[in-house]
Amino acid sequence: MARTRLTPEREGELYEAVLDLLREVGYDALTMDAIAARTRSSKATLYRQWGSKPELVAKALRHNKPGDLSDIDTGSLRGDFHTVLSRTDDCQMEKDAALMRGLSHAVHEYPELLQALRELLIEPEMNGFDEMLQRAVARGELRADNPALKYIPHMLIGALAARQLIEDRPVDRAFLTDYVDSVVLPALGV
Amino acid sequence: MARTRLTPEREGELYEAVLDLLREVGYDALTMDAIAARTRSSKATLYRQWGSKPELVAKALRHNKPGDLSDIDTGSLRGDFHTVLSRTDDCQMEKDAALMRGLSHAVHEYPELLQALRELLIEPEMNGFDEMLQRAVARGELRADNPALKYIPHMLIGALAARQLIEDRPVDRAFLTDYVDSVVLPALGV
Repeated sequence: MARTRLTPEREGELYEAVLDLLREVGYDALTMDAIAARTRSSKATLYRQWGSKPELVAKALRHNKPGDLSDIDTGSLRGDFHTVLSRTDDCQMEKDAALMRGLSHAVHEYPELLQALRELLIEPEMNGFDEMLQRAVARGELRADNPALKYIPHMLIGALAARQLIEDRPVDRAFLTDYVDSVVLPALGV
Repeated sequence: MARTRLTPEREGELYEAVLDLLREVGYDALTMDAIAARTRSSKATLYRQWGSKPELVAKALRHNKPGDLSDIDTGSLRGDFHTVLSRTDDCQMEKDAALMRGLSHAVHEYPELLQALRELLIEPEMNGFDEMLQRAVARGELRADNPALKYIPHMLIGALAARQLIEDRPVDRAFLTDYVDSVVLPALGV
């Protein structure tokens, strides 16, 4: 198996190609054949490395996220949240939102995609948030038993979904920063 | 036009038939012909009364909502929210959530459906909430300039969307009540 291991650079190239294809044709029409052709790799390599299309898509999305949330440590929860948001510019946020809209459509039809997104994208992302929150608890900024803690994903997903559905506008950094300051931090008692 | 006016009972029957059909075949396959056949009415009547399929679907969903939110006046915002939630039982909530999942899929393909849902379902619903909130402001329970006020739809939509997406469980009254108490009221400073 060692000789088939991809370099991090090659892995990154593959993930970018997968996201490009996903934007071009959508999840439904995305095939392992098309990914193999676009990246000049064999389907056998793709399956050996990722197992399945949903897994490959989820890992590509995860790779697309800027850095590890647990690296962020500004000394205040507000500062940490603002730093998370400052890592992605508005153009990238709009591209990401378009991707997620397409996928939120696809998860209705492909439960194995939803499963892969939960395990390989949402849970690792939430673990990064948890470390950030645990540091705020350790600093005495946040109570460990605050009942809103378990609803942070719900609050954040609501911001993304409703911006589109009700306001019909793309998410951007100014909106998300105001939402964090107006909803997330007050709900957490910060 | 007066002679073609439907009685409220007949209108209610029509809306229920539309929702039944929507559950059976989905928005895409729902036709004005099928609605006319199911309700033994003429397509001319349907178009005269509702104008279009998205408008008919949005009004049927609105009719399905239990009563007018602005009727609720328990004397506290927490009491008002809990009363809103107590009006729908868990079985009905699950049926509603299934309908909304199907439609959240369809709005990607039919912008005129999204438009009708915004104007005929979401906005009237939000106006009812606004009256409830204005009374809380008048009582001195809530500050009129609380920055979370404009994000109530985002918070509520997040509860519905994330429950499905992350927890993979249907919404029920116990979950929504805990979410209101843990997130919505603290964000509003209540």
